[in-house]
Amino acid sequence: MYRTNTCGELNITNLGQQVTLCGWLQRSRDLGGLTFIDLRDRYGITQLAFNMETNPALCEQARKLGREYVLQVTGTVIERSSKNTKIPTGEIEIQVEKLTVLNESKVPPFTIEDQSDGGDDLRMKYRYLDIRRNPVKNNLILRHKMAMLVRNYLSQHDFLEIETPMLIKSTPEGARDFVVPSRMNPGEFYALPQSPQQYKQLLMVAGMDRYFQIVRCFRDEDLRADRQPEFTQIDCEMSFVEQEDVLQTFEGLAKHLFKEMKGIEFADFERISWHDAMRLYGSDKPDKRFGMEFVELNDVVKGHGFSLFENAPLVVGICASGCAEYTRRQLDELTDFVKRPQVGAGGLVYIKYNADGSFKSSVDKFYDQNALKAIADKFQAKPGDLMLILCGEPMKTRVQLCALRLEMGSRLGLRDSQKYAPLWVVDFPLLEWDDETQRFYAMHHPFTAPKPEDEALLDDQRRWGDIRANAYDIVINGVEVGGGSIRIHDRQLQNKMFHTLGFTDESAYAQFGFLMDAFTFGAPPHAGLAFGFDRLCSIFGGVDSIRDFIAFPKNNSGRDMMSGSPSPIAKEQLEELKIALKG
Amino acid sequence: MYRTNTCGELNITNLGQQVTLCGWLQRSRDLGGLTFIDLRDRYGITQLAFNMETNPALCEQARKLGREYVLQVTGTVIERSSKNTKIPTGEIEIQVEKLTVLNESKVPPFTIEDQSDGGDDLRMKYRYLDIRRNPVKNNLILRHKMAMLVRNYLSQHDFLEIETPMLIKSTPEGARDFVVPSRMNPGEFYALPQSPQQYKQLLMVAGMDRYFQIVRCFRDEDLRADRQPEFTQIDCEMSFVEQEDVLQTFEGLAKHLFKEMKGIEFADFERISWHDAMRLYGSDKPDKRFGMEFVELNDVVKGHGFSLFENAPLVVGICASGCAEYTRRQLDELTDFVKRPQVGAGGLVYIKYNADGSFKSSVDKFYDQNALKAIADKFQAKPGDLMLILCGEPMKTRVQLCALRLEMGSRLGLRDSQKYAPLWVVDFPLLEWDDETQRFYAMHHPFTAPKPEDEALLDDQRRWGDIRANAYDIVINGVEVGGGSIRIHDRQLQNKMFHTLGFTDESAYAQFGFLMDAFTFGAPPHAGLAFGFDRLCSIFGGVDSIRDFIAFPKNNSGRDMMSGSPSPIAKEQLEELKIALKG
Repeated sequence: MYRTNTCGELNITNLGQQVTLCGWLQRSRDLGGLTFIDLRDRYGITQLAFNMETNPALCEQARKLGREYVLQVTGTVIERSSKNTKIPTGEIEIQVEKLTVLNESKVPPFTIEDQSDGGDDLRMKYRYLDIRRNPVKNNLILRHKMAMLVRNYLSQHDFLEIETPMLIKSTPEGARDFVVPSRMNPGEFYALPQSPQQYKQLLMVAGMDRYFQIVRCFRDEDLRADRQPEFTQIDCEMSFVEQEDVLQTFEGLAKHLFKEMKGIEFADFERISWHDAMRLYGSDKPDKRFGMEFVELNDVVKGHGFSLFENAPLVVGICASGCAEYTRRQLDELTDFVKRPQVGAGGLVYIKYNADGSFKSSVDKFYDQNALKAIADKFQAKPGDLMLILCGEPMKTRVQLCALRLEMGSRLGLRDSQKYAPLWVVDFPLLEWDDETQRFYAMHHPFTAPKPEDEALLDDQRRWGDIRANAYDIVINGVEVGGGSIRIHDRQLQNKMFHTLGFTDESAYAQFGFLMDAFTFGAPPHAGLAFGFDRLCSIFGGVDSIRDFIAFPKNNSGRDMMSGSPSPIAKEQLEELKIALKG
Repeated sequence: MYRTNTCGELNITNLGQQVTLCGWLQRSRDLGGLTFIDLRDRYGITQLAFNMETNPALCEQARKLGREYVLQVTGTVIERSSKNTKIPTGEIEIQVEKLTVLNESKVPPFTIEDQSDGGDDLRMKYRYLDIRRNPVKNNLILRHKMAMLVRNYLSQHDFLEIETPMLIKSTPEGARDFVVPSRMNPGEFYALPQSPQQYKQLLMVAGMDRYFQIVRCFRDEDLRADRQPEFTQIDCEMSFVEQEDVLQTFEGLAKHLFKEMKGIEFADFERISWHDAMRLYGSDKPDKRFGMEFVELNDVVKGHGFSLFENAPLVVGICASGCAEYTRRQLDELTDFVKRPQVGAGGLVYIKYNADGSFKSSVDKFYDQNALKAIADKFQAKPGDLMLILCGEPMKTRVQLCALRLEMGSRLGLRDSQKYAPLWVVDFPLLEWDDETQRFYAMHHPFTAPKPEDEALLDDQRRWGDIRANAYDIVINGVEVGGGSIRIHDRQLQNKMFHTLGFTDESAYAQFGFLMDAFTFGAPPHAGLAFGFDRLCSIFGGVDSIRDFIAFPKNNSGRDMMSGSPSPIAKEQLEELKIALKG
């Protein structure tokens, strides 16, 4: 062993001990008679002291060392004269007796500090240096801890982690697969899994009862910010359970994580139906760290001659507490915000409830003080509040108002990353109408079961949009961190579902044949859920981006800037695979 | 919840309780007045009793159920009249009051019994039924337990599990990569990792200190029996350690697994140099469950006019205790065995040490009783023993004799799968001569460090074959279950190593550039090891094949017989990827 201790563990109780430490030179300070070096490893920083008087040769040597040199030092733990109470090792330093340079380092392209001077591109190119920085290092440690907690919790609850294949069959349904040409079977391809969905259902048919896997998944999508072509899921499936059992089980897991990672103990998570989530927050993943629920205003705004409201199927708003003093400029900003193409509203109506009890609005021409008071009452507004109102086609307007609500939440500091608001969204619609192709699609996937009480509606095409699924999402702070459903295990219901989705018997079999075959040999009732692990880690880390919770992420073009992958391959490789490049 | 209990937990202490169970119909017996059903789930089997007298309707219903039907039953736990002491639930049965068929099943293509009537192909095609069988199910449970033990042990020893990318850069060195065409970067490819070797070394440069990962790896090799295109490694790397630290750390892990999984406590593992392993067992992975060490005979066999021995650079044999009574036929079988092309020996010389003290050999013409006694003494043979001798070029002959030794070990029942003989093989050669290309290759990989005391030999090309590496394998029962090395962290030594391997500066950089770059920013001394997890599980399971420790394995053509992968993909997919199939 090159060392007796790490750089994070020595303190006043170790005084007088001879120790050997290894690490990287974080910083050195030459104070004339004394030279100090901060030696850093994964565990912390320990100050090294070199004395020009007592050991000039060693001190001279120390002065020549550059940042990020790898050092091994032997010396004695002594008390510091000027203590640093901010770090655990801050009361001691090492009086160095022996110094070995284990490796030199070029000057790093950015400083290895919590706040770095490296831009994103530089940080990604030299990710191995970026990881030396505390924020990134701590994210990876958090991720490890989360994974261990998840595995031990699920294992203690009789879940078995079972590895499913990475080289699987490509299916045209869903997002785009990454494919892998098979050299041994020319002209044929494997696909990388978008999720182990079919395999985990097969494991239920196999009687494995409670399965989980922390597993890499792949999706060849055009990458938006903060999407990665490979990502990690906590994938779970259970047999002989109803929705309540699944919710209880994974709420238990989430509570365990909050308790162990954050010291937060939650009572039961709130549950909200998809319908209510859309009605009250305009989103199937409401951020419930703050209220500001939607208030529908049709009954109080109509009949005043304001044609925009008269003609709108829905007039709906939010009440921002204490914002009546917003300036013209602030209100213009909000109007600009909702008019941005990403939000897409035509405009914004505001009503200020002034401190003196009077109202000021952008629609004073149509609404007198009494009319505005009626609206304010509907909002349960108080003097000092600001009401913001949108109108239009219901679903579109709700989604627009959702963006405005989140914007106001951010402006008012109501979206604290250290505060957590987990909830379940349940009763999703089973089917989703697609205007473009003029047909219904499965909102979750074709194996998701309808609610038993809604099953009969499958026989009435006009009611398909009303069928609710036994599907559920777990949402934390406005982010969907997991979701799942009760699966169909009855063949007749499955056939009906396929027909509803426009499959013929043949086309359904072509796509889902081996799973359908398996289901003829005694499929148990089963259900599952998958968490997005990268996202879950980022939420527990209190950071928006998932990228810093992945050791070696890819950029928005799917490229690893460090290794330069993807890259061309040799002609011989292409020939062996019996494929050619086109244009 | 569909059930109150599992089928594996009820016993005499539960008498009188009302319970609900779910599971699969394993077997039913119709005894006229009574019908019994064995209900099976992952946890065990519970007997259900239906009485024609007390509940004829239910009993009639029960009689119609087929094998593998999925049932839910509610009833009372009662004491069996005829008890089965072989299973934990064997003293009780359930007097069924309510029976629900949760799903029907077609007649399965093979029986769900420990000894199945399904051949390998059928078992693979219906793997989801195969997994219902105890042996396969138990293998997957064993695998889960092993993974949990490994993760918790390493985590408790400050190792962090860090996920490395699956879509990486292709390198021409080593085995063949599976590649993944990049749609977003046409003409370019990702590779699937053969191991996270470079990433784990980068994590050491990143200061992460102690890394592990249970990780899927991929190799596009022509598959031999029991090789899989995707396999799982326990991949580990440590910084600031010497070989002894690595050996202690992972010996600790192995001991922990033996203790927890098998209840076996080991003293320190034996260590043997590669050179001794080859000399005494003809293998770098000796099976030490039994002795039968090689005895070199040149000094006692030469000078007797037996030209085969006279001309052979090495005459070497083994002594099979108590086998002097082997018949002509048995000896012929052994001769045939060594002459098989897989072994490749020219023939076999035997010497029987008869119980009466006399000798009988296949070379009596050249060796009198005294000469045979001298050979026997060299073997330290006793009356009743059988000596088996091969001769020829040393390394080839040793490898042939290794095969014979293992064969004799098997014939004598000395290779008990429930007995464990772990050991370390150390001091591997750094470089391996390849006759075909007339150059040296890295035996492990180009980043493996030579032993410091052998470093100087790099300057003398004639001695390159003698350089020993700081590399080590962990071997259990004749199987290499893991291996690793101290890595080179010094740039000059690394350059010298690249030159030794025939790289120019440019060609080395083209292949290993980003790792070499990383090494200029303060690489710590580091070392690592990787276990083959599939193989490790199979050894702990006492089974030769790794296939039954993988939930969904592929066959020898890399094909998943269940899903039919790999398979052709749609023309549109190829077009999006800008690739075309050739011939």
